[in-house]
Amino acid sequence: MMQIDLNCDMGESYGAWPMGNDAAIMPFITSANIACGFHAGDPAIMQGTVRLAASFGVAIGAHPGYPDLQGFGRRNMQVSPAEVYTMVLYQIGALQAIARAEGVAVKHVKPHGALYNAAAKDRALADAIAQAVVKCDPQLLLYGLSGSQLIAAGAAAGLRTCSEVFADRTYQPDGSLTPRSQPGALIENVEDAVLQVMQMVEKQSVKCLSGEAVAIRAETICLHGDGAHAVEFVRHIFSAFKEKRIEMRAPGR
Amino acid sequence: MMQIDLNCDMGESYGAWPMGNDAAIMPFITSANIACGFHAGDPAIMQGTVRLAASFGVAIGAHPGYPDLQGFGRRNMQVSPAEVYTMVLYQIGALQAIARAEGVAVKHVKPHGALYNAAAKDRALADAIAQAVVKCDPQLLLYGLSGSQLIAAGAAAGLRTCSEVFADRTYQPDGSLTPRSQPGALIENVEDAVLQVMQMVEKQSVKCLSGEAVAIRAETICLHGDGAHAVEFVRHIFSAFKEKRIEMRAPGR
Amino acid sequence: MMQIDLNCDMGESYGAWPMGNDAAIMPFITSANIACGFHAGDPAIMQGTVRLAASFGVAIGAHPGYPDLQGFGRRNMQVSPAEVYTMVLYQIGALQAIARAEGVAVKHVKPHGALYNAAAKDRALADAIAQAVVKCDPQLLLYGLSGSQLIAAGAAAGLRTCSEVFADRTYQPDGSLTPRSQPGALIENVEDAVLQVMQMVEKQSVKCLSGEAVAIRAETICLHGDGAHAVEFVRHIFSAFKEKRIEMRAPGR
Amino acid sequence: MMQIDLNCDMGESYGAWPMGNDAAIMPFITSANIACGFHAGDPAIMQGTVRLAASFGVAIGAHPGYPDLQGFGRRNMQVSPAEVYTMVLYQIGALQAIARAEGVAVKHVKPHGALYNAAAKDRALADAIAQAVVKCDPQLLLYGLSGSQLIAAGAAAGLRTCSEVFADRTYQPDGSLTPRSQPGALIENVEDAVLQVMQMVEKQSVKCLSGEAVAIRAETICLHGDGAHAVEFVRHIFSAFKEKRIEMRAPGR
Repeated sequence: MMQIDLNCDMGESYGAWPMGNDAAIMPFITSANIACGFHAGDPAIMQGTVRLAASFGVAIGAHPGYPDLQGFGRRNMQVSPAEVYTMVLYQIGALQAIARAEGVAVKHVKPHGALYNAAAKDRALADAIAQAVVKCDPQLLLYGLSGSQLIAAGAAAGLRTCSEVFADRTYQPDGSLTPRSQPGALIENVEDAVLQVMQMVEKQSVKCLSGEAVAIRAETICLHGDGAHAVEFVRHIFSAFKEKRIEMRAPGR
Repeated sequence: MMQIDLNCDMGESYGAWPMGNDAAIMPFITSANIACGFHAGDPAIMQGTVRLAASFGVAIGAHPGYPDLQGFGRRNMQVSPAEVYTMVLYQIGALQAIARAEGVAVKHVKPHGALYNAAAKDRALADAIAQAVVKCDPQLLLYGLSGSQLIAAGAAAGLRTCSEVFADRTYQPDGSLTPRSQPGALIENVEDAVLQVMQMVEKQSVKCLSGEAVAIRAETICLHGDGAHAVEFVRHIFSAFKEKRIEMRAPGR
Repeated sequence: MMQIDLNCDMGESYGAWPMGNDAAIMPFITSANIACGFHAGDPAIMQGTVRLAASFGVAIGAHPGYPDLQGFGRRNMQVSPAEVYTMVLYQIGALQAIARAEGVAVKHVKPHGALYNAAAKDRALADAIAQAVVKCDPQLLLYGLSGSQLIAAGAAAGLRTCSEVFADRTYQPDGSLTPRSQPGALIENVEDAVLQVMQMVEKQSVKCLSGEAVAIRAETICLHGDGAHAVEFVRHIFSAFKEKRIEMRAPGR
Repeated sequence: MMQIDLNCDMGESYGAWPMGNDAAIMPFITSANIACGFHAGDPAIMQGTVRLAASFGVAIGAHPGYPDLQGFGRRNMQVSPAEVYTMVLYQIGALQAIARAEGVAVKHVKPHGALYNAAAKDRALADAIAQAVVKCDPQLLLYGLSGSQLIAAGAAAGLRTCSEVFADRTYQPDGSLTPRSQPGALIENVEDAVLQVMQMVEKQSVKCLSGEAVAIRAETICLHGDGAHAVEFVRHIFSAFKEKRIEMRAPGR
């Protein structure tokens, strides 16, 4: 039986500011990437998000980012690999303690935003992240953009990796994402998104923006939890997998 | 053979701002309380401090504080016990990950500044801290002001506790510290400090400001790492214990 | 013709986190208290909020708070009057520059959250705030809880003050607000709120929770911009004043 | 009579963390660039630094930076010109209020660290900063690296500019600074620094690392206030100008 993981960034509220639809989306995903306080999240929100994920049997992951609340971790920052290594250790450790206190374990790590993007291309940063994950717990899975330096770094470090693809982003012939600044970067129609996702999971290929099919490793689908239609979108993806009898579950279980 | 622990707050630099004399003081202490990023410290500084402590065989402890860099965790803040519980979990976990990556384990927890003072008197806060420590690792020692609610809370939670006394503060007849706002609160003469410390360790009593001796539980001496004469002060205390053949070592070893 | 000011806290988003319904509420108020980056707001959000207020001819005020994003400025903090003085200067100045760049002037100052509450009772803090306002611009109006130390401090400092009353809070026989922790603290029914507001504006008195009427100075009504029914609530108050031909306008115009 | 401005970054302490030797250096400079809370400084420190500068008749300038305390504003951040514009307005305004409260006026603006470097090369960023300065006060002088985009942007915006050169950095044939990563980037010998400074001021040229002399506009000398020999270095420069009867004073006086 074919299987797939559905992951979503969660716990991205901060203090008095709510963000996302965590409670509505949690039932339809299998892995939650929980913000760890640097770009979003605070200790109380991390605890609430761990509890929510645990109550649905959703796998818990750390979602470390750059220390930039005002920019939500989306602004690129010139941080050395040595500093990134300690920042990632710090954030994973903080979530591990909060998860452990709730009786659950952290299962994976997925960098956030600008750190995710930088680690996709910069091998030294990617290695720093992979080393931090190994040091926290070598059983942790490392999530990264399919085909990225982060996946390569994780494999080289001996970690199990999980190659991420996007339901709502189009791809280029080289397997990279169409930059958001270009036309056609986003798939806004849920039927098209379902078609793309199905092809990626069943055939491990994607029809790129220019029409040709390119090979892609698809082990987890990234879903977005914010935006007006997020919940509807996630429900559709979930239903499509159910119909096709593709098992949705966190990897490594 | 009599024994005592000498602890000092360490790793209280932040980013480009140095603080304290960690390298000069580390050789003379047995337990280091390492700031965890909320009132001071950042991931890189935490890593450097863990390495320094480990290189001297000094026991590593978490030193969680209120989230107040600008006030160095010294300003009282109205934070609920439930929030304090998650903040303490977060900070201990962050240090545990950084320590583990260096091959060492966190051995104790001592709250910082305003949180330390609040937990000395407010049992609900003290219980929240003790519960966070239990959840992180029930083998951790909880450090608190001798005779305080925090020590009582730790004992009630089943933790091993370590009662802290001060070399450079005077005491009141009820065993509490003379408030800093009052005359005579500080012992600035190192000979007087050594005398007080010796009496506390050897006789488990202290001659309070009014002259009478009161019983006090003294399991660890708090030393201060900043200030012009900090290093000289610490060396004197260290030498005095050495002369008296009182063994200096971290508790629970 | 009778007149009243309707004020609302605005610009309390932060970075990627929206808060409130500023665009929907702005048409119905006469004074906007704009967060200045310490408890909420960032420079870009301050600019957008100033523009929105200016486009509706709404008077712009600074809404300084404690430096506590995580706690939204609602946690009491032990900050000395001397520090509060500099914090308030800083925040007003920041908003003045952003407003000036948009061609408008800051007209009033209203402290936020825990600082507002502390300044209502603590005269030294209230004096510090009043002095900061005087130093920024002696033409600024100082908003504070009706009957509070802040109003007294403003008057003593030679400032024009504006006594604030609440549409959705009940009052005690001594003219103070019923604490939120007590039953009956909130008025959730919009008709009751309109009744209370009308009595306060027309008669300068309020029927307190125990039934008796007490005198109260009502120069501005505080409206709340967040919550499910905020917009509906504000519209009702607005319409009620319109019907009664009570002029809504910012004070000192 | 020839004249020159000596500027130094000041007020870069934060909360409990001191930095620099402000009190020792202030007597020897003519312009102080005061950190505004984003990369360093807090309201109380800004106030103290304004007072210190005012007591020596030193001109007060705003020293705005990226919002990055942990990185001391030295890490490049991907911030849009529109955001930089509001950040610079915010920081200048904050200092203006604090200075005004002390009875002095802000006279110039010099961006800090990574923002200074980015604005030297990126014209859009430089324009954003220049526009913010114009909007705060068109009489403000804009300080920037000699020959940089920031100086060009300031001139284009109608501002008086002040071209900055360095006493302790070597130059390339194109007039740019030798990158710190290259050998020979720093001048550590105070005699060499004095020679370079004199040539720059008297001849408006600099002998670059390769030996040839290149033209350079030198209106203000940047001195560094931290480091072991900062005070000695500054005193030497000061004495050298005094001997040569070159008047040291803030520009535009």
